[in-house]
Amino acid sequence: MYIFTNTLGSFVIDEKFKIVEKTNDDEKLLKKYKDAKKPTNPKVINHVLKLFKDDAKKFYEVNISNTKKLISKSVKDDNLIISAIKTIEDLDVTANSLAKRLRDWYSYYLPEAENDIYDNEAFSRVVLEKNKDVLKKELKIEDSMGADLKKSDVDSMLSLAKLIQEIFSQRKQTEEYVEKVMKRSCPNFLAIVGPNIGAKLIAKAGSIKKMVFMPASTIQLLGAEEALFRHLKTGAKPPKYGILLQHPLVSKAKKKDRGKAAKTIADKLSIAIKVDYFKGDFIGDKLRKDIEKKIG
Amino acid sequence: MYIFTNTLGSFVIDEKFKIVEKTNDDEKLLKKYKDAKKPTNPKVINHVLKLFKDDAKKFYEVNISNTKKLISKSVKDDNLIISAIKTIEDLDVTANSLAKRLRDWYSYYLPEAENDIYDNEAFSRVVLEKNKDVLKKELKIEDSMGADLKKSDVDSMLSLAKLIQEIFSQRKQTEEYVEKVMKRSCPNFLAIVGPNIGAKLIAKAGSIKKMVFMPASTIQLLGAEEALFRHLKTGAKPPKYGILLQHPLVSKAKKKDRGKAAKTIADKLSIAIKVDYFKGDFIGDKLRKDIEKKIG
Repeated sequence: MYIFTNTLGSFVIDEKFKIVEKTNDDEKLLKKYKDAKKPTNPKVINHVLKLFKDDAKKFYEVNISNTKKLISKSVKDDNLIISAIKTIEDLDVTANSLAKRLRDWYSYYLPEAENDIYDNEAFSRVVLEKNKDVLKKELKIEDSMGADLKKSDVDSMLSLAKLIQEIFSQRKQTEEYVEKVMKRSCPNFLAIVGPNIGAKLIAKAGSIKKMVFMPASTIQLLGAEEALFRHLKTGAKPPKYGILLQHPLVSKAKKKDRGKAAKTIADKLSIAIKVDYFKGDFIGDKLRKDIEKKIG
Repeated sequence: MYIFTNTLGSFVIDEKFKIVEKTNDDEKLLKKYKDAKKPTNPKVINHVLKLFKDDAKKFYEVNISNTKKLISKSVKDDNLIISAIKTIEDLDVTANSLAKRLRDWYSYYLPEAENDIYDNEAFSRVVLEKNKDVLKKELKIEDSMGADLKKSDVDSMLSLAKLIQEIFSQRKQTEEYVEKVMKRSCPNFLAIVGPNIGAKLIAKAGSIKKMVFMPASTIQLLGAEEALFRHLKTGAKPPKYGILLQHPLVSKAKKKDRGKAAKTIADKLSIAIKVDYFKGDFIGDKLRKDIEKKIG
C-alpha cells in the first residue's frame, strides 16, 4: 500500500496501482492504513503518476483555486492601514488644491476674506456658514473690492466650499479608522507615535513584518531616504530623523537634541513593533513613559 | 469765476480764490455758474492748487475708495466662467486620483471588480450600491482572491466611494453653472461649441474680450501652443487644431479633413464671439447649421 499526496488530495494506492481511497484528511487516512508508505522507488512513482495523467486540467484548476485562497488570506491589517494612510495623503492634496481654487474664485466676491483666514478648512467653513455682510462686519472690511454677484454665482462657489468640507470630514473619518485598525494590530506601536506618524512609518517600511526586522536606526531614518543618499553620495551631513521629526517630543526639542530624541523613540518603537507582531502584552504606556523620562 | 475738478469733486472758485460751492454734479454746476471756466493760466492754477494743499490724506482715501469700486466693477462673467472651468479641471484630477486609490484599496476585498468596471464614476457607484455577494454574482466571479473583511474595514472604503460620487456630482453641477453663465454672456459662442469646449477656449484665450480681438486662425489653434512652438522652432509639422479637436465635428472627421473642419468652426466662432461681445442678436443656430452644411 502506498499513500500519495498531490494538489488534488491524498490517495491510498494498492499493490496493483489502483486508487483505493481518496481523502483530504491525511491523519485519518494514516490511521486506517497503518502500513501505507510514500512511494520512493522511481519505478513505483512512475506507475503512480500514470494514474493522474489525464488530470492536467483538474490540477490546473485546483492549483489556481488554492492560490486564490492563499492570496485572499494574505491580506493583512498592514495593507488596510497603508491604503488608508495613502488615502489620507491624497485627501490632503485634494482638499488643499480645491481650497486654493475656492480662494481664487471667492476673491471675485469678497477678496479681503482670503488674507484674513489662513487655514483652508476654516476658510471653506466660514464662507459656507456666513454670508458676505456678516463676514464684512466680522472681518472689519469696509470698502470691499469684491463684486456684487448674483445668488446663483455665489451658490456655485459655496457648493465647492461644501465639497471641501466633506473632504476634510472624510479625512477625519479615515484617520479614526487608521487608529482603530492600529489599535487591534499594533497597539504598543500606536501608543508611542499615534495613528498619523505610525501609519506613515508603516507605509514607508512596507509592512509591519518588515519593520520587525529593521534595526532601530533604520526606523529612526524612515522618510529621510533622500537626505541619507545625499549624505552617502556627496558627504553632506547625515540625517538624524525622517518622519519622526513630526513627533512632538522631537519637533519641540532644541535642534541639537532632536537626533537623540528621535533615536530614543526609534529604540522603543523597535521593541513595541516586535511585541505587537508576536502578540505580546500591552506595554505601550510603559514604553512611552520611558521615552518621556529619557527625553524630558 | 473758475470751475476746478479733482478726485474730491468739482469746485466753484471766485476771483479771490475762495471756494464758493462744491458738488459732484458738474452739469448742474455749469448751469448755475455759466461764466465759470477751467483755470488755464499757470499762476491761477498755482493759486487754486494751494486751496487743496492740506487734503493729501483725503485725496489718498478717496482715490483708494474709487479704485476699489472700479476693481469691484471689473469682475466679468469671463472671470466666473474661467474659475468654474478650472474648478472642473481640478475636480476631474481629484476624482480620478481618489478613484484610483479606491480601486487599490477595494482590491483587497474584491480584486476582480477592478478589471470589469473601467469607468471611475461607475466603479465608485457600483461598489457603493452593491454588496460583495451581489457584485460577485453580477460579474460572474467564482473564486474571488479578495479577503473576507470586517464590516468596519469595508465601510471605510465605501465612505471614500461616497465622497468620489459627491465629487462627480459637484463636477456636473459646476458644468451646468458654466453653461448658465455662458448662456447669458456668450449665447452664440455657446451654441456652436457647448459649455465644456467653450469654457476651455475662453480660459485659454484669457477672456471673451481677448478672443474678440483674435484672428480666427488663433482661435483654431488655442490649446495647441506647444505644437505651434515646436513647429516654429524645429520645423515639425504645424498643428491644425488644439482644444477644437474635442468638438465632435472635428474628432469624427477623417484625419485629413480635421484641419478644414477646425478652421470652419473657428471662423464661425470668431463671428459668434464678436456678436456676443457687442450684444448682437442670437444667430448661433444659423452659424451652427452653416458649419454642419460646410463640413457634413
